Amino acid sequence: MSSTAPLTYDQAGVNYDLIDPLKVTAQRAAAATASHLASHGFSEVQASRGESAYVVDVGPFYVASIVECLGTKTLVADEMAKLTGKSYFAGIAQDTIAMAVNDLITVGATPLVVQAYWAAGGSDWFGDAQRAQALVAGWKAACDTCQVAWGGGETPALAGIVEDGRIDLAASCTGLINPKERLSVGDKLGPGDAIVLLASSGIHANGLSLARKLAERLPQGYLTEIEPGLTYGEALLAPTALYSPVTEALWKAGIAPHYCANITGHGWRKLLRHPSALTYRIHTVPPKTAVLDFIQKQAGQDDREAYSTLNMGAGFAIFVKAAAAERTAQVARDCGIAAWVAGTVEAGEKQLLIEPLGIRFSENDLHLR
Amino acid sequence: MSSTAPLTYDQAGVNYDLIDPLKVTAQRAAAATASHLASHGFSEVQASRGESAYVVDVGPFYVASIVECLGTKTLVADEMAKLTGKSYFAGIAQDTIAMAVNDLITVGATPLVVQAYWAAGGSDWFGDAQRAQALVAGWKAACDTCQVAWGGGETPALAGIVEDGRIDLAASCTGLINPKERLSVGDKLGPGDAIVLLASSGIHANGLSLARKLAERLPQGYLTEIEPGLTYGEALLAPTALYSPVTEALWKAGIAPHYCANITGHGWRKLLRHPSALTYRIHTVPPKTAVLDFIQKQAGQDDREAYSTLNMGAGFAIFVKAAAAERTAQVARDCGIAAWVAGTVEAGEKQLLIEPLGIRFSENDLHLR
Repeated sequence: MSSTAPLTYDQAGVNYDLIDPLKVTAQRAAAATASHLASHGFSEVQASRGESAYVVDVGPFYVASIVECLGTKTLVADEMAKLTGKSYFAGIAQDTIAMAVNDLITVGATPLVVQAYWAAGGSDWFGDAQRAQALVAGWKAACDTCQVAWGGGETPALAGIVEDGRIDLAASCTGLINPKERLSVGDKLGPGDAIVLLASSGIHANGLSLARKLAERLPQGYLTEIEPGLTYGEALLAPTALYSPVTEALWKAGIAPHYCANITGHGWRKLLRHPSALTYRIHTVPPKTAVLDFIQKQAGQDDREAYSTLNMGAGFAIFVKAAAAERTAQVARDCGIAAWVAGTVEAGEKQLLIEPLGIRFSENDLHLR
Repeated sequence: MSSTAPLTYDQAGVNYDLIDPLKVTAQRAAAATASHLASHGFSEVQASRGESAYVVDVGPFYVASIVECLGTKTLVADEMAKLTGKSYFAGIAQDTIAMAVNDLITVGATPLVVQAYWAAGGSDWFGDAQRAQALVAGWKAACDTCQVAWGGGETPALAGIVEDGRIDLAASCTGLINPKERLSVGDKLGPGDAIVLLASSGIHANGLSLARKLAERLPQGYLTEIEPGLTYGEALLAPTALYSPVTEALWKAGIAPHYCANITGHGWRKLLRHPSALTYRIHTVPPKTAVLDFIQKQAGQDDREAYSTLNMGAGFAIFVKAAAAERTAQVARDCGIAAWVAGTVEAGEKQLLIEPLGIRFSENDLHLR
């Protein structure tokens, strides 16, 4: 592969064709276990199957839970630590919590408890006190931002499974949907709703395989400046935005989203997540963050490819009734997160039309269920 | 190291001296986040800090949550698959769920939802359909046994973090303590209580680093017969017993444990888990499972070393009022799990006395908090 050839996500090493059949089998087996809840007097919220978090009706409120993996962003942090002598694990901790919290809130849940899963390649990983303390401090700071309790967790040393010197990070999160009318699994989503997009802080934690592959093609690697004074590596490591302060503030402002989508893997195709046949028409495209613009150009991706895999500046989508759209965006801005009333939901076939860019994604472009 | 020298847990590669300082810092930082729950109208059950699962008081009941790692048992399964052509991942799935469920129930919780965390070294892992389907089937079967709903999970491909051809397995679990009097975080534990021990099914998923190291010293390795027709590898891979059917049956029988301890890492020292100053006197020691007896002999461990790291035949301890002890054991037997009224709780210094073996463990032998 020449260094100027376009770089696709598949080439970056993740083959969904191998993973997806297992996912389908697992989803079917999982769905068959829902009936067990009845023996405890409870029931699942069936519409949450396939959504970002699983929801159980326990009577006075709903309980939502999730486990989420950070992915391979630590490999960038490790490489940058070698190059700069700094530790990036405070930001990495925030990324990990964001993966769980930003998913959990899509269903209307208030995150209450986060558990840490830190699986190292050996006990030695924890012997680097600066790095370990940064991980702890960043984890706590992200919990503080999201107002969740850090319940505990696991710090196994898994030599032979996790590679020497590496760490596999994940977070589980449990929350309540309380009161129950906060539930947002899409049944309220419909024509006339507005789409509000919240700014991302960078690449977040999806697309890192591609980003790492790209670094190999850059003569200066991670130290390439993408703008004066900002290296590619530093830009990649901007911690993922935490959106739960926004969803909590919305509720306090009397706004109940009809649906939410966390824009992670599959990029903007995640806007098609809900199974309804609806057309999503985007009239305003948020500015690309610098690092995503850089990746798109260096990887030679056209807009269609870029928006189908990366967040391109929009990290979270909130679908609300049109009358609440401007207020929704303002609440996000008041939380320090840029936001745009970006589009509308319409009756029609299932598709996403990003009009300013002339892009159309259809149902065939996304298979999550 | 000669092949007849005793083999200790430290030699098997896990250095708790490196992990424990981080754990302490993390526990302190985590404890400081509990106050966030008040902003949502809730509070933590402080006594659950340091227990096996974290508990939050949400009003009508308590919510308990946890994330737990399987550890390195998959390395034995992988090796045995090479040697025998069989897949052992159905049992491995049960092990993983057992790690989470058996911890969650110690606080009195009914497990409701399990989430799967299956982080593979690459997409290829999922391409072995027989193995992947065994993992799915075993996961579902364990959910069925525990009557929990499988909510979903993560199946990331983490090339560069998880080793090629390996998988890092974990489970998160959320449950309710309902009604609230089922809470068992030790405040009811006291002199006069009986200790009921439930049989383990083998090594479970703790001590595998030692067990794997030992296999290297055996001329026939995992294919060494530990009894006629049973190889060391097969015996190691006996899936971990699931104890939630017992704790649920106990509640239905009107028995509320005062405290429970899941006997995992640190072996029988886990009986000293509760912070109270109490003496635990064991008068009846359950039979060793064959594989643990084999390990002890081959590793040249004395009883003190063996009981301080392995479950030695007892996988779970239930502390109940003396009058309920025999019935507790009978309820477990009715669930298909052997059980023994094994000892008593007494006033006195914090210590565990395994009288038939002449072993004493004191507070200094266990640092979990």
